[in-house]
Amino acid sequence: MFTCDKARMKDKIETFAQYGDTGNGGITRYTLSPEDVQAREEFIERMEAIGAEITTDDMANIYATIPGSDPDAKRIVIASHTDSVKNGGNYDGILGVITAMEVLETVVENNISHKHPLTAMIWTNEEGSLYPPAMMASGVIFGQFDKETMLNSKNVLDETTTFREALKASDYVGEKSNRLNADDYKYMFELHIEQGPILEANEKEIGVVTCVNGMLNYRIKTYGQSDHAGTTPMEYRQDALYAAAKLIDYLHQELDKLASDLVYTTGEIKCHPNVHTVIPDHVDFSIDARHEDPAVIEQVFEVIKNMPKEIVKCKVEYEKAWGRDTVYFDKQLVEYVKESADELGISNQYINSGAGHDAQFATTMLPTTMVFVPSKDGHSHCELEHTSLEECTKGASVMLNAVLKADINN
Amino acid sequence: MFTCDKARMKDKIETFAQYGDTGNGGITRYTLSPEDVQAREEFIERMEAIGAEITTDDMANIYATIPGSDPDAKRIVIASHTDSVKNGGNYDGILGVITAMEVLETVVENNISHKHPLTAMIWTNEEGSLYPPAMMASGVIFGQFDKETMLNSKNVLDETTTFREALKASDYVGEKSNRLNADDYKYMFELHIEQGPILEANEKEIGVVTCVNGMLNYRIKTYGQSDHAGTTPMEYRQDALYAAAKLIDYLHQELDKLASDLVYTTGEIKCHPNVHTVIPDHVDFSIDARHEDPAVIEQVFEVIKNMPKEIVKCKVEYEKAWGRDTVYFDKQLVEYVKESADELGISNQYINSGAGHDAQFATTMLPTTMVFVPSKDGHSHCELEHTSLEECTKGASVMLNAVLKADINN
Repeated sequence: MFTCDKARMKDKIETFAQYGDTGNGGITRYTLSPEDVQAREEFIERMEAIGAEITTDDMANIYATIPGSDPDAKRIVIASHTDSVKNGGNYDGILGVITAMEVLETVVENNISHKHPLTAMIWTNEEGSLYPPAMMASGVIFGQFDKETMLNSKNVLDETTTFREALKASDYVGEKSNRLNADDYKYMFELHIEQGPILEANEKEIGVVTCVNGMLNYRIKTYGQSDHAGTTPMEYRQDALYAAAKLIDYLHQELDKLASDLVYTTGEIKCHPNVHTVIPDHVDFSIDARHEDPAVIEQVFEVIKNMPKEIVKCKVEYEKAWGRDTVYFDKQLVEYVKESADELGISNQYINSGAGHDAQFATTMLPTTMVFVPSKDGHSHCELEHTSLEECTKGASVMLNAVLKADINN
Repeated sequence: MFTCDKARMKDKIETFAQYGDTGNGGITRYTLSPEDVQAREEFIERMEAIGAEITTDDMANIYATIPGSDPDAKRIVIASHTDSVKNGGNYDGILGVITAMEVLETVVENNISHKHPLTAMIWTNEEGSLYPPAMMASGVIFGQFDKETMLNSKNVLDETTTFREALKASDYVGEKSNRLNADDYKYMFELHIEQGPILEANEKEIGVVTCVNGMLNYRIKTYGQSDHAGTTPMEYRQDALYAAAKLIDYLHQELDKLASDLVYTTGEIKCHPNVHTVIPDHVDFSIDARHEDPAVIEQVFEVIKNMPKEIVKCKVEYEKAWGRDTVYFDKQLVEYVKESADELGISNQYINSGAGHDAQFATTMLPTTMVFVPSKDGHSHCELEHTSLEECTKGASVMLNAVLKADINN
């Protein structure tokens, strides 16, 4: 068994944490921003230092490849992203890129023999923070999103600049022929923080990810009557926010009767006209529910379908926003991860991913899997994100050995 | 008894409805906008036609005055506003101005003797739609608001233009010495639509307004923990929106136990980060409660004070936004309105104003009162606003006679 280098991991984690440093322990590093360019340059410099060949594709994804012993073997790619949400942390995405680099560095440093070329890769715009949607570049490469539509995505801050312009202004646009593809690539691996509290609660250092949970996303809408807050007696009111509040409570009551590991969230609410002196006439809120078992997702839909059609004199409607079926990772690759952790003596468990990742789109093209490391207190997408150096290094070691198992056995 | 002229009222209502016509039965007429200038010019033209003298003050309020028989008598002013909310109706504010014009026109047309000069007046920016706050100009004139602060109020649409600039660009700025003041003015009257369903429900044509209800305005805040919607098991969550929904329901349950004519509204809600894939960590919503009796308002405060301090693991806080005590109108003037309606054989009732009006600030300087006319279906601040021509004309007749009673008896 080979292991990765803690000091080298520490150096990379600390170095990348500078690019977009908020000064409060986290980073803001939007895709292709000056801060992201710093991270990309650091990646390129370090990969060139170990002799990797750098290419980029038409979505500004970056590939750093070291050759294997078999000139005909396809590449094994280890990928994640360098971009973050606003006031994000130092681990989401970037730890997967650091791990990919560490795997290649360890292979080169220790002159570890391998048949397949190994590629460390950066996916562009995984977060979609500035240019929605999330997982934009992988969505394009794996045929989930239309490229033209993506290029027209507008900067959510200035509402003017398009992703096309951001891409044009960057130095990372290469040939479409350089894209990750099934002819040249054999497997994809991604390491990511769990973004939840399960590993920590179970005192496990590694999550052997088996799938990305299926999800359902609906908008729930209430319709009342907008009237003056001071002049309308209570019995005349049709208050759409009161109706929405009652519905949110109702959904909790009903959904809590379903599978205990179902998660659901009413994260977004829009209230119209949203003025303190006016009774709201329309409220629209989101419900996001996730579970591996499609039967449970179907039960959630039944709850939504059977909501009261009218509540506190307001009409209730629902509308599907989107959904996805559970995406299962490649069984063989999952077992390579499990075996590597076991053989390294690192505590681990099987786990589902509740969040979406570029890796889920990759499954449509090539065998793919993921490795999770613990998130302290379950925090992610915030400056509190933390995974200990020990855990990060163990994650990289598991990745290294899983990749080597995939290399040697195929 | 004198009565006003239905045909002349019709002509004015239809004429003013053109200025800012949305094409959907309502108007958008922001203060000092080109549409408001049309309304102001119409007012000036019609008032000059009956020999009124026009003056303006430093807040662009317009005064049109016809002399009385006593050169030493103070003026009686009848005032309201020409501006509207976005997609407002043809009655809120403008009907009070039309009524003021109609009273002066009837007096001149019929050569009705009167001792006091009579002034028809337009208050600038009652709605505060473009430049908050509402009742801006009366707030300045009656010492409720600091003028400098008001001049710096920013256009809510472009977030750049200040009210100072809007005022500078208008042709209606006059001397500060022209302001409504206690030395030159004896009484103020205002006619307004009820903006609620009470008169219609009780089949009354006139509301004899006795007071503007006291109000309490608080912000209720819940604090949870922002985590990923897909990766955080339900038992780990502190969902601030779920907490807010439960609190809104709780407030309804508790407040519904208080006086049956209490009105309260949770009209505005802000949810952070308000993203469908993130558990909300902070929600802030408004509660506005109004009642004549300060003891009832105090009971509302007790309910807020006694809310659970923690709900679904989220911390609950409250903060006073503002409040006002009940403002009572002048008893003598109120009785002039009541007597006029009775003597004209127009059905009427005493009523409280649940909404705020320029007239409430005027009470701090001079005896003031208001007349309400019915709002069809209680609608206001929307294009559905409607008061029949018959009711509008009866309202003007009641105003005329109330003003003449005030004139002759004082």
